[in-house]
Amino acid sequence: MIQVNRNYGKLKESYLFYNISRKVKAYQAEHPGVKLYRLGIGDVSLPLCEAAVAALRQAAEDQGNPERFQGYTPECGLPFFREAVSAHYAGRGIALEPEEVFVSSGASDELGDILDLFEASSAAYIMEPAYPAYIDASIMAGRRIVRLAAGPENGFLPTPEREPDADLIYLCSPNNPTGAVYSREKLKQWVDYANARGAVILFDAAYEAFIESDLPHSIFEIEGARTCAIEICSLSKTAGFTGTRLGYTVIPKELERGGMNLNAMWVRNRTTKTNGVSCILQRGGAAVFTPEGQRQVMENIHYYKRNARIMTEALAEAGTEYWGGENAPYVWMRCPEGMKSWDFFDRMVREIQVIGTPGEGFGSCGEGYFRLSAFGRAEETAEAARRMKEWLKGLRGQRGEGK
Amino acid sequence: MIQVNRNYGKLKESYLFYNISRKVKAYQAEHPGVKLYRLGIGDVSLPLCEAAVAALRQAAEDQGNPERFQGYTPECGLPFFREAVSAHYAGRGIALEPEEVFVSSGASDELGDILDLFEASSAAYIMEPAYPAYIDASIMAGRRIVRLAAGPENGFLPTPEREPDADLIYLCSPNNPTGAVYSREKLKQWVDYANARGAVILFDAAYEAFIESDLPHSIFEIEGARTCAIEICSLSKTAGFTGTRLGYTVIPKELERGGMNLNAMWVRNRTTKTNGVSCILQRGGAAVFTPEGQRQVMENIHYYKRNARIMTEALAEAGTEYWGGENAPYVWMRCPEGMKSWDFFDRMVREIQVIGTPGEGFGSCGEGYFRLSAFGRAEETAEAARRMKEWLKGLRGQRGEGK
Repeated sequence: MIQVNRNYGKLKESYLFYNISRKVKAYQAEHPGVKLYRLGIGDVSLPLCEAAVAALRQAAEDQGNPERFQGYTPECGLPFFREAVSAHYAGRGIALEPEEVFVSSGASDELGDILDLFEASSAAYIMEPAYPAYIDASIMAGRRIVRLAAGPENGFLPTPEREPDADLIYLCSPNNPTGAVYSREKLKQWVDYANARGAVILFDAAYEAFIESDLPHSIFEIEGARTCAIEICSLSKTAGFTGTRLGYTVIPKELERGGMNLNAMWVRNRTTKTNGVSCILQRGGAAVFTPEGQRQVMENIHYYKRNARIMTEALAEAGTEYWGGENAPYVWMRCPEGMKSWDFFDRMVREIQVIGTPGEGFGSCGEGYFRLSAFGRAEETAEAARRMKEWLKGLRGQRGEGK
Repeated sequence: MIQVNRNYGKLKESYLFYNISRKVKAYQAEHPGVKLYRLGIGDVSLPLCEAAVAALRQAAEDQGNPERFQGYTPECGLPFFREAVSAHYAGRGIALEPEEVFVSSGASDELGDILDLFEASSAAYIMEPAYPAYIDASIMAGRRIVRLAAGPENGFLPTPEREPDADLIYLCSPNNPTGAVYSREKLKQWVDYANARGAVILFDAAYEAFIESDLPHSIFEIEGARTCAIEICSLSKTAGFTGTRLGYTVIPKELERGGMNLNAMWVRNRTTKTNGVSCILQRGGAAVFTPEGQRQVMENIHYYKRNARIMTEALAEAGTEYWGGENAPYVWMRCPEGMKSWDFFDRMVREIQVIGTPGEGFGSCGEGYFRLSAFGRAEETAEAARRMKEWLKGLRGQRGEGK
C-alpha cells in the first residue's frame, strides 16, 4: 500500500477566507438585495495597466505567427525578463546578476515550491499574525513551527530575541496582515542573526511597491543578506497580476548551506520540475518594468494608497488604534471595546454591512485585531470608511453612556 | 544551521539535453555555416492554432478592461476550463465531474508537484527507457526507485511481472521516448495490479492526442482506474503550448489511500500552495476544446504524424528496426551495427548532420537505441529522413563489404 502524506490530516479543516465567504453568503441569503462593502479580500480591483495589456496581447498574437512563435523557454526565466528585473533592482542601487533572478508563477506558488530545498527537519520560524499559507505549507511538509508573536509593543515588527531551534525564517515586509514595514536597522538584526546561525530568511516582498519612503524595498538593501536570504516577489499587488499570475525570486549566488549552493539547487529544481513560465506572461511582466509601465502601475498603487489613507483617517477620527496603511495596502486595527475579532466581523456585517478580515485568522496573537484592505474601489472604500467612522464613534458613545 | 535537501547532491551532474546541446555547439564551432537537421528535441515547430490565439488575445485585452478584468481565480481551475475538459472526456465516453479536473501549468510542473501527496518512503516503479525527470524528481525526494526494463521482447510495453516493494507507478502512453502505446488489455493488468497492491498509477498522457485508433487515450477508459490512477495531461503536444504552458490533471473522487481522499488532498494542496493558473492561459486552453479548436489542432497533429511516417518509411527502406511513430510523435530505432547510442549520435552528426536523442539518456536499457522526434518542420524532416536512409543503407553495405 502506498503511503500518503499524512501531514495533510493535521491541517485545520476550515480556512480563513472560506469561513468569511460562508458567513457572507449566509448574511446575503437572509438579507437579499442589501449592498455589502468589501474591505476583506486581498484581491485588486483595478485592471492591468495599458503597457502590460499591450505586451500580453502582442505576445498572444506572436504565438500564432510562425516566425515569432516561442516554444519551450529556459526554465529559470527568459533572459529579457531576468534582465528587466535585475535592471529594476539596479535602479534602487542593488546589484543582481540576471542569473540570480528566477521567474515564478507568483509568490504563493513559489513559497510552496521553494521548501523543496530544505529538509523538513529544519523548523520554520514564523512571526504571527501571518499569511496562513506559511503555516499550512509547513504543516504539509511535517515541519515543526516556532511562532514569534508580533504585537503593539514592537510595532508588529519583532526582532530575534531568543534562540529557538528554527532555521527557516519567514519575514514579510510590508506585512500582510499588519501593514507594518521593517526598517533597515531591524532587518539588519535579522540578517545578522540568520548569518550567525546559518539560518535562511524567506523574505516575502509581495507588497514592496507600496513603499514610498526610505524604508527598504528589498532585503538585499541590507549588508550581509546575500549570504542568508531568498527574496520572493510578485506582480500581483505591484501590477494587478492576481489572476494573470507572475512573480520572481532572487537567490544570490553566495547563498550556501552545508556545502550546497542554493542558487544552483534551484536551477536544478526548476530544470527538473518545470518547463518554465509562459512566455506570454513574461512578456507582460517585462512591460511592467519599462519606464512607461512603472509610471502606469504607480498610478494604480497611488489609487490604493488613497483608499488606505481614507480608512486610516476614518479610524483616527473615530479614536480607534491602528497600524499600517502608510507604505502598505493593509490597515490593521484594534477591535473596539475588547471585542473578539470574529465577533467584530459578525457585528460589523450585520450593523453597517462592511466586511473585513478577522485578525484571529492570521494566528492566535491576531485575536482582538482586524485587517482592512485598500484594494477595493474608491467609492466603496469611502462609503465603508464613512460607515465605520460613525459606527465606531457610536460604539464608544454607548460605552460612555453605560458608565 | 539549516539542513538543506541533500538528495540534490545525489543527482547526476549532467543532463541529457544539456549534453546534446554542448556537443552540437562544439560541432558548429568547428563547422561554421554547416546546416544541421534536428530530430532531437521534443519541442513543437508549428505556431498555436487560430482559435487558441484569438482566445488568448481576447483574454489579454479583457485584463485591461475594468468590466471584464479577472482577479484571483479558483486555485483548482476556472469552472469553464474544468467543464471544457470534462466535456472533452465525455465525448470519448468517459464520465468525469469538473471537480475531478485540476488545471496545471503543464505536465512537467505537475509531475513534480503531485509527489507532495505521497511519503518519500513509498518507492517509485519506473519503466525504462523513461523521461529523465521521473527519475530526477524521485531522487530529489529521496525516494527509492525500482526500475522495470522495457525492451523489444515486450514491444517496450512491460506489464507487472514481479512484486517489487514500489507503489508509485509511472506509466507514459504514448510513450516518451519509445512511441509505444498501451492496449486496453495491458493497461488493465496495471490497473488490477495497482488496485490489488494499493498502489497509485501516475499516468502521463501528454501524447494522447496522437492516438487515432482504438487504443486508449486515457487510463480512465479502463475499468477500475478510478480507484488507483491519476492522469496527467498537457496542451504542450496536443496544441503546441510548450512555451505558452497549460495542462490538466484528473484525480477521481473515488481515489483513496490510507483513509485519505486524494482529490480532497489535492484541493488542499492547490489552495495552500498556489493562487491558480493564469486566467489568460485557461481561456486559450478552453478554446482548444471547442469543435473549431479541435479541428485546428488535429491539422497540426496530422502534420507531425506525416513527419513520423516519412521517418518510419525511411527506416523501413534502410532495413532498420524501429518502434512507435504510428500513434505517437516519437520513433524509437535500434542503432545499426551494434553501435552504442552516443557513438551513433556523434557519428550521425559528423557524417550526415542529423541530430537525434541517444537512447542511453533515457536509462541504461535505452543503450543501443535512438529517439527521433516528429516535431520538426516537414522540409527539414524529409531531408533528414532521406539522408538517414542512404547513410544507414551505406553502413549495412560497409559491413557487407567487410565480410
